[in-house]
Amino acid sequence: MIIAVIGGGAPCTPEIDALAQQVGAEIARRGHLLICGGMGGVMESACKGAKAQGGMTIGVLPTGDARDANAHVDIPIATGMGYARNVIIARTASAIIAVDGEYGTLSEIAHGLGFGVPVIGLKTWTLARSDGSLDRGIIAVGSPKEAVERAEAEGKKRA
Amino acid sequence: MIIAVIGGGAPCTPEIDALAQQVGAEIARRGHLLICGGMGGVMESACKGAKAQGGMTIGVLPTGDARDANAHVDIPIATGMGYARNVIIARTASAIIAVDGEYGTLSEIAHGLGFGVPVIGLKTWTLARSDGSLDRGIIAVGSPKEAVERAEAEGKKRA
Amino acid sequence: MIIAVIGGGAPCTPEIDALAQQVGAEIARRGHLLICGGMGGVMESACKGAKAQGGMTIGVLPTGDARDANAHVDIPIATGMGYARNVIIARTASAIIAVDGEYGTLSEIAHGLGFGVPVIGLKTWTLARSDGSLDRGIIAVGSPKEAVERAEAEGKKRA
Amino acid sequence: MIIAVIGGGAPCTPEIDALAQQVGAEIARRGHLLICGGMGGVMESACKGAKAQGGMTIGVLPTGDARDANAHVDIPIATGMGYARNVIIARTASAIIAVDGEYGTLSEIAHGLGFGVPVIGLKTWTLARSDGSLDRGIIAVGSPKEAVERAEAEGKKRA
Repeated sequence: MIIAVIGGGAPCTPEIDALAQQVGAEIARRGHLLICGGMGGVMESACKGAKAQGGMTIGVLPTGDARDANAHVDIPIATGMGYARNVIIARTASAIIAVDGEYGTLSEIAHGLGFGVPVIGLKTWTLARSDGSLDRGIIAVGSPKEAVERAEAEGKKRA
Repeated sequence: MIIAVIGGGAPCTPEIDALAQQVGAEIARRGHLLICGGMGGVMESACKGAKAQGGMTIGVLPTGDARDANAHVDIPIATGMGYARNVIIARTASAIIAVDGEYGTLSEIAHGLGFGVPVIGLKTWTLARSDGSLDRGIIAVGSPKEAVERAEAEGKKRA
Repeated sequence: MIIAVIGGGAPCTPEIDALAQQVGAEIARRGHLLICGGMGGVMESACKGAKAQGGMTIGVLPTGDARDANAHVDIPIATGMGYARNVIIARTASAIIAVDGEYGTLSEIAHGLGFGVPVIGLKTWTLARSDGSLDRGIIAVGSPKEAVERAEAEGKKRA
Repeated sequence: MIIAVIGGGAPCTPEIDALAQQVGAEIARRGHLLICGGMGGVMESACKGAKAQGGMTIGVLPTGDARDANAHVDIPIATGMGYARNVIIARTASAIIAVDGEYGTLSEIAHGLGFGVPVIGLKTWTLARSDGSLDRGIIAVGSPKEAVERAEAEGKKRA
């Protein structure tokens, strides 16, 4: 299974760094491939965690240069398409785990939900619809382990 | 100025149809170009409103066939890139007006906010960050007229 | 009808500049919209020619910033997708006129031929297939006037 | 190293099928990753050859559904962007090997040459510039083994 980890590209707080590494590690331990945007921040932490467990990582880069990938990306996919690459990550993954994140992450959450890909949230956005009701699209979880278990379970249901 | 109108592609309720038409009409009356995703629903209503006031409309289509544009699109841009075309609308507009909308609209709101393009919201999503605080990115307004006035004012500040 | 003019972005020789301006002018004179990549070189010359005849020009930019368009573009579409924007131009046009051009132009010719969009060539690439036979995809013409007449005729056949 | 194999998606002749399989096999034998468009024809033959030698294959799909990949793709990247995905393959590879091919292949050759990625040609297109001179961009070779050796050598020079 290919599981996406999405989150901000800016340097993480120690808390978010630890969460993202644990998510990456758990994905690798369960034998899944990790796909992400290939840059810094949450993406780098998640890749680092996966590699520490002998996992394999794919980075779908916004730039056209594979050398822009963080040091823990095994397979850099250089798109040169900027944020349009978010769509590719959302379409390729069997499930998406969002950790924290800014507007870029929100766009990816939205693309994932729009495509019917399960989106698991760990300390990330909360969405309310135009009528004020809470949107139930993001499956909020409390720990990295739970995030990956849920991603696996929901991803299987879909396949 | 090029102003984007974004919203769901499914058939609108009469209320949302009326709001979207009024937004389109106001954009045209003030001499701006309207850009949208070129399909049905809010996009079609907005284009219809603009054309009724003699405006000009651009539709950036997800499909590769210009004939998929709604009947009120003057300039169909056929991308064949699916939802990746949302990025183009967000980048091209000086300001974005979101009317209602589903996940596709949310992705476009997120792309706009990420690019620093002003996003005006009319009965659309409300966003809360990971710490539970309300995100102030979307400028919520109460009427089509206010939406376009605000889009114009914010778009000018940015230029 | 929307007619594309494609060609290199580097500064033109006087001969190519004149040809591109004449192509743009003829497109405008016949009441068609001109679409191009919005940057310098052949794109700029063609837009200049079209504007001198009161035409309307669309520039589908590789960058994410509308201000990168040349001064003769009326409607800048900012994609932020680099060369992937070539596909959009090829899909949107009813016919494509290639004037001179480098590898970027060749990619656009190939996309156009692949989509079944008529491609008219004015001092541009010649293609031979793997068996050594000349490829007949590009319709070679001898003058700007002939290029636009042929683009119009072929574009009509297709619609 | 990531080496791209490009070629037509329609069913191959036995000769082209054999060449593509041998190219894929040689890429795998030398320990490189194979990237391609993930569909049928030359892409499928090349992936099949690589898998027979225990290699790893990446398919960058035009569709948004990973299940559209041929049976020999290990990592399907679902773009949903149609032919715009050709740009991604050209940008990601250290070198490109073109085997036979139609207009889609030609667009990918052109993107590769435009990005400065070495393009090796095996029974593929021949290009002549506007002045009638032969374009020297494609490095023509006579056998699958030579194609991969040359891709490796040229790819190393560039890195």
